[in-house]
Amino acid sequence: MREFRIAVIPGDGIGKEVVPEGIRVLEAAAAKHDLRFRWDEFPWSCEYFLQHGRMMPEDGLDQIRRHDAIFLGAVGFPGVPDHISLWGLLIPIRRGFRQYANLRPVKLMPGVPCPLAGRQVGDIDFMVVRENNEGEYSSIGGRLYEGTDQEMAVQQSVFTRQGVDRILKVAFDIAQSRPKKHLTSATKSNGIAITMPYWDERVKAMSAAYPEVKVDQFHIDILCAQFVRNPHWFDVVVGSNLFGDILSDLGPGCTGTIAIAPSANLNPEREFPSMFEPVHGSAPDIYGQGIANPIGQIWAGAMMLDHLGCPEAGASVMAAIETVLGSGLRTPDMGGQAHTTDMGKAIADAV
Amino acid sequence: MREFRIAVIPGDGIGKEVVPEGIRVLEAAAAKHDLRFRWDEFPWSCEYFLQHGRMMPEDGLDQIRRHDAIFLGAVGFPGVPDHISLWGLLIPIRRGFRQYANLRPVKLMPGVPCPLAGRQVGDIDFMVVRENNEGEYSSIGGRLYEGTDQEMAVQQSVFTRQGVDRILKVAFDIAQSRPKKHLTSATKSNGIAITMPYWDERVKAMSAAYPEVKVDQFHIDILCAQFVRNPHWFDVVVGSNLFGDILSDLGPGCTGTIAIAPSANLNPEREFPSMFEPVHGSAPDIYGQGIANPIGQIWAGAMMLDHLGCPEAGASVMAAIETVLGSGLRTPDMGGQAHTTDMGKAIADAV
Ligand SMILES: CC(C)[C@H](C(=O)O)[C@@H](O)C(=O)O
Ligand SMILES: CC(C)[C@H](C(=O)O)[C@@H](O)C(=O)O
Repeated sequence: MREFRIAVIPGDGIGKEVVPEGIRVLEAAAAKHDLRFRWDEFPWSCEYFLQHGRMMPEDGLDQIRRHDAIFLGAVGFPGVPDHISLWGLLIPIRRGFRQYANLRPVKLMPGVPCPLAGRQVGDIDFMVVRENNEGEYSSIGGRLYEGTDQEMAVQQSVFTRQGVDRILKVAFDIAQSRPKKHLTSATKSNGIAITMPYWDERVKAMSAAYPEVKVDQFHIDILCAQFVRNPHWFDVVVGSNLFGDILSDLGPGCTGTIAIAPSANLNPEREFPSMFEPVHGSAPDIYGQGIANPIGQIWAGAMMLDHLGCPEAGASVMAAIETVLGSGLRTPDMGGQAHTTDMGKAIADAV
Repeated sequence: MREFRIAVIPGDGIGKEVVPEGIRVLEAAAAKHDLRFRWDEFPWSCEYFLQHGRMMPEDGLDQIRRHDAIFLGAVGFPGVPDHISLWGLLIPIRRGFRQYANLRPVKLMPGVPCPLAGRQVGDIDFMVVRENNEGEYSSIGGRLYEGTDQEMAVQQSVFTRQGVDRILKVAFDIAQSRPKKHLTSATKSNGIAITMPYWDERVKAMSAAYPEVKVDQFHIDILCAQFVRNPHWFDVVVGSNLFGDILSDLGPGCTGTIAIAPSANLNPEREFPSMFEPVHGSAPDIYGQGIANPIGQIWAGAMMLDHLGCPEAGASVMAAIETVLGSGLRTPDMGGQAHTTDMGKAIADAV
């Protein structure tokens, strides 16, 4: 029996509702595949901030540094500004633990009404690989002439060779491992004419090492349009922090519901724990009603199993999600009546 | 009879095929509405670059400074890098003539197959207002440690109070003038945490002057997803240079074809000529076959008529486009057989 120690951070809002369902399903998978989980829960959240003046303790990262993985719900709540809630918890974990590779699968699932006309299960199935540590999300910049007519705010995008090459390597490796071996790079070198041409150069350089991978590139504007028009064109799509963020919301938007989309924040070198979370946020508008869709969280759990070296267990969870979705059980965001716990229990049973 | 002097820049690729159709339709509108156009054609293009080593003469802007408007096709061709073709012609005109307001209507038109399931004509009809001069498209930045492992490229985004306020004013004015009076601001203040919070602040400040306009904001990631999921939510959407660029390709992607989308680069103060162009590019892949869709160019002509103070003539062109699309005539990009000239002639006749 293999044992894993998981740091659980339910966070805010519906994070607190979906994380228990994720755990329920992971426990079912553990029972089936002879694994054991030790769940250490950390109450770091906006509530914690209101009590302690910070989103997590000063030694927060140290407290979870030796866990095998982090299972996160969602962070953020009205009343606590983003620069506190996100920049005090989510982003420090992504950066502090060098989780530079953010993997976000986009797949049209059975039983989920697709907003695109005429698309069938099987038509849309790609992976967005997002740079997660640098790029447009730097903290470099500020304001000048504050409060006057000449006021301005500037912010730097930073693309380092190390940062770009390591995410490209992850993306090329994934593309190489898939049957289609097709990688699309998101760029905007015609408009963002300093950093993006650099990105393109590194893509070109890296592609020399992957002769089997077919590489193309689209400017982000037309790429977004093609996600809608021709989603079947894509296999692996790699983008900067911002472009990957956009594409990994738009992709699930095209497959029906962002609530089922998962996100793996990976430290591929395994120097630090990786973090698994749904793509959706804390959804304060529906929090407390027990109607949040737990599938994004559960799918994130499946990605965690893969990362922990238990792909059979991960596959069991994915099969259970597909079975339950195929059976017609749906939460209200997908036009159904099921509650968060109904969905979690059904998927755990199906495992 | 009112007379207008128009600088015509067909540019490259299909620009040279669609501009004559735009002129054909504008001539028809002129005949009907007692207007006269004087067309001065400028051959500035990648071809011009190959002969002269620049995209336009050194005094190019001076040559067209006193025209009433600029009617542009498309710029860019394989073999000439973007930083020459675009930054040597398109962008200098947008900036040199302070065309800071880029208006890009998104509308589901009759007869155009919609890639979104179940959407009808009337469901999607909004205006993207894009900042066109600053923001993420600055030329500030560069590289350090070139050619080494420590190499990096940095680029600054610049948001000035003047630049932000003037585009917001245009957007609020448009929202105010429309029945729904609803303005959506595209932001990413949770991730791009220096410039985007500044944008949000200016939106809030400006909204005080427009008590009738209902304002909301979305982060660009979820906003893109909502364009697909709930396009009927939107009335006027304002975004930075990059976000406006993305949204104004994604929007037409959702309504069926980017080939019909127009773009007005306005200098609202009328110190300089404004420029009217289709959203699509020069499409080298289909150039020379006579199958390019001229509707984006023709619609851009309708926006030019509005700007020149001839809204009845603009309305005639729009009605003609809708009539012809409704009749089922389509170019190959929309699944039809019509040639560029068939479409142009049909719309001119309908005017
Ligand atoms: C060609 C490119 C620089 C341009 C832009 O991004 O502004 C184009 O995409 C547009 O939208 O007009
Ligand atoms: C909350 C926000 C900072 C975050 C991001 O942009 O990284 C979110 O949108 C995500 O994609 O995980």
